[in-house]
Amino acid sequence: MRIDRDRMLESIDRLAAVGATPGGGVTRLALSDEDRQGRELVGRLMEEAGLRVRIDDLGNMTGRRDGSGDQPAVVLGSHCDSVRRGGRYDGAYGVLAAIEVARRLNDLAVTTRRPIEVVNWTNEEGVRFEPAMMCSGVVAGRFGRAYVYDRRDLEGKRFEEELRRIGYLGSEGDRPGPAAAYLELHIEQGPVLEAADLAVGVVQGIVGITWSEVTVEGRADHAGPSPMELRRDALAAAAQVISAVEQLARRTPEAVATVGRLTVEPNVINTIPGRVVMSVDVRHGEPATLEALVAELEQVIAALADERGVGIALDRFWTSEATPFAPSVVAAVEDACRELALPSRRLWSGAGHDAKYMAEVCPTAMIFVRSRGGLSHCEEEFSTAEDLAEGADVLLNAAWRLADRAG
Amino acid sequence: MRIDRDRMLESIDRLAAVGATPGGGVTRLALSDEDRQGRELVGRLMEEAGLRVRIDDLGNMTGRRDGSGDQPAVVLGSHCDSVRRGGRYDGAYGVLAAIEVARRLNDLAVTTRRPIEVVNWTNEEGVRFEPAMMCSGVVAGRFGRAYVYDRRDLEGKRFEEELRRIGYLGSEGDRPGPAAAYLELHIEQGPVLEAADLAVGVVQGIVGITWSEVTVEGRADHAGPSPMELRRDALAAAAQVISAVEQLARRTPEAVATVGRLTVEPNVINTIPGRVVMSVDVRHGEPATLEALVAELEQVIAALADERGVGIALDRFWTSEATPFAPSVVAAVEDACRELALPSRRLWSGAGHDAKYMAEVCPTAMIFVRSRGGLSHCEEEFSTAEDLAEGADVLLNAAWRLADRAG
Repeated sequence: MRIDRDRMLESIDRLAAVGATPGGGVTRLALSDEDRQGRELVGRLMEEAGLRVRIDDLGNMTGRRDGSGDQPAVVLGSHCDSVRRGGRYDGAYGVLAAIEVARRLNDLAVTTRRPIEVVNWTNEEGVRFEPAMMCSGVVAGRFGRAYVYDRRDLEGKRFEEELRRIGYLGSEGDRPGPAAAYLELHIEQGPVLEAADLAVGVVQGIVGITWSEVTVEGRADHAGPSPMELRRDALAAAAQVISAVEQLARRTPEAVATVGRLTVEPNVINTIPGRVVMSVDVRHGEPATLEALVAELEQVIAALADERGVGIALDRFWTSEATPFAPSVVAAVEDACRELALPSRRLWSGAGHDAKYMAEVCPTAMIFVRSRGGLSHCEEEFSTAEDLAEGADVLLNAAWRLADRAG
Repeated sequence: MRIDRDRMLESIDRLAAVGATPGGGVTRLALSDEDRQGRELVGRLMEEAGLRVRIDDLGNMTGRRDGSGDQPAVVLGSHCDSVRRGGRYDGAYGVLAAIEVARRLNDLAVTTRRPIEVVNWTNEEGVRFEPAMMCSGVVAGRFGRAYVYDRRDLEGKRFEEELRRIGYLGSEGDRPGPAAAYLELHIEQGPVLEAADLAVGVVQGIVGITWSEVTVEGRADHAGPSPMELRRDALAAAAQVISAVEQLARRTPEAVATVGRLTVEPNVINTIPGRVVMSVDVRHGEPATLEALVAELEQVIAALADERGVGIALDRFWTSEATPFAPSVVAAVEDACRELALPSRRLWSGAGHDAKYMAEVCPTAMIFVRSRGGLSHCEEEFSTAEDLAEGADVLLNAAWRLADRAG
């Protein structure tokens, strides 16, 4: 089975016209007027596809296609909100491809055993109301509804009032599910598929992330009269920490680690740095490997501090645990690729998606589609029509497999 | 011969009372009222030591002790201006020890063949009027007098007017010299002597300094979805540059090199750094070695840029050439140490002094005295009475050697 490419691309173009920016992107912040217009279009498209639309107490929109039985549904979801001057595919593609799945099943008069639900999650981006993915988080029991209702944007506007204002405050009984499986199709937002020359990737999970602050305390001295062997140069020590962070990640398959932020004191051309503060972001899909990476880094740091006579402290202040996806759903996606004779590879998502929270309540996986230059959250974000069609073909076939299975 | 320690220390205490700060330091900015008071005290001390005092067109004060002949003088100098909340020894010690040399020669009724001149240079620090060492610079022909006269402080006050205001605008004919040799005694302002457990160091020259700005251009990307092998991380590359700068200096005797200033863009915890700009300060006493160090660094940078696929540019924007001191004057200082049975070592000055310019017009050297913790330009600056006395003993004996030599 293949989706109708032109029909899907036309839907994408129509939604991209809502909140369109001069640079070719979109701005549809959650619960804004543009979000409302986008929701109205998505609702019409769902209805045209024969889906029964319901709105829950968080504004999540669900379009349901009944199955032959009354079992839990296969849920296909993503989001239609965007960042400021974001791309036209991030989120929207996943929702519109899922609607195309329903249309295509209609075209072919396929009745699945399980119902199929298409979900447009509210506020995935978390730009206007923090945190990100808050409404799938409520459905998964991660956040309380009252917490989300009380979130305010920078102008002080409450989430609940804004949801009511745009006309999308529904009822708790209309949340998505119950779900037998959750599938999310999304652009990759990274360069892996482009580098591998592949249109489609099978996402095996969302990596665990841990953030630490590393502080190096040396001794600030005049750069002139201090011989190398008497120095306690905080930046020279920090440079070795940075190299160690990179080396640890390089020799650990699938790991990434980044020193993104670094400040030097006093930061003067002719003074040996006395203090460096830097961030370390480490990510891996296996919790044990993530812990081992941090432990190794702590050992390296202790040895460096000892060797150089400087103080180095690592403060691990935030961790988001890894979310491995369900082997059964990952396998359904891989089977779909095989069936379509589409080469693919497994990869990890380095960023969060609503699938992260859904994985806590039902078997879940994601499909990634190649993104030019790995760019996203910008107007230059781009995927080819061919790649978008192939990703949607995989979604269609994987959804059909999952929905037609007895259970 | 030994100086009279208590008499010298008493002079130091008296001058330290002028512009004294609550924290035990001094503030005597050039051509300030405190500088005038300091000069008045120094003039009185010179006269009490039997020196004939003259003031030149830059405010430099010279106290002359005649020799038996009419040959060029042995000039002993330093400065009595200070930085804001500076130490009580930086500069003042060298002037007051030189006055004590004259007193001691008087005590012992020594007549030298050459005259001995004691100089208090105007505005060595360059804090109020930039650049530093400007008045020895005029005497050495490095700056024109008009240039110096037109320098203004932050309030817009001209050097010449301020010099006239404090009553120290003399005449060109009263500049120091002609000089057969120049000797300057100074606290070390660095940790070498303390680390070597030595009271006195023989300064063989002032190092050359070169400043460069190194810019690393990588590619800013999300820290999550970018595998290590596809990154162009500007900070990871910069870390290797920092380590290379340190290694180059460590394996080159007497070299120092410092990355003191570094900024990261965009400097965000979960973004791979796209751009790093940093300073590199390299110093060495031998011009050829300094050039070789920069050339090696450029090679390392080119290889790193190639290996990592990043751009690295080195912009060498300032160089102060090295000033090796005269072997004859360095030898006189070492002979004096030997005569006093005082262990010493040779070292380079990593900072500028009036001796840098005097070395361009006559054979020159310096004597350093141990400075606790290598601290200077701060109220905590400290040298022990024993060390101060030993340094002055070396000045006395070296000056006597230089002044008594026929030629």
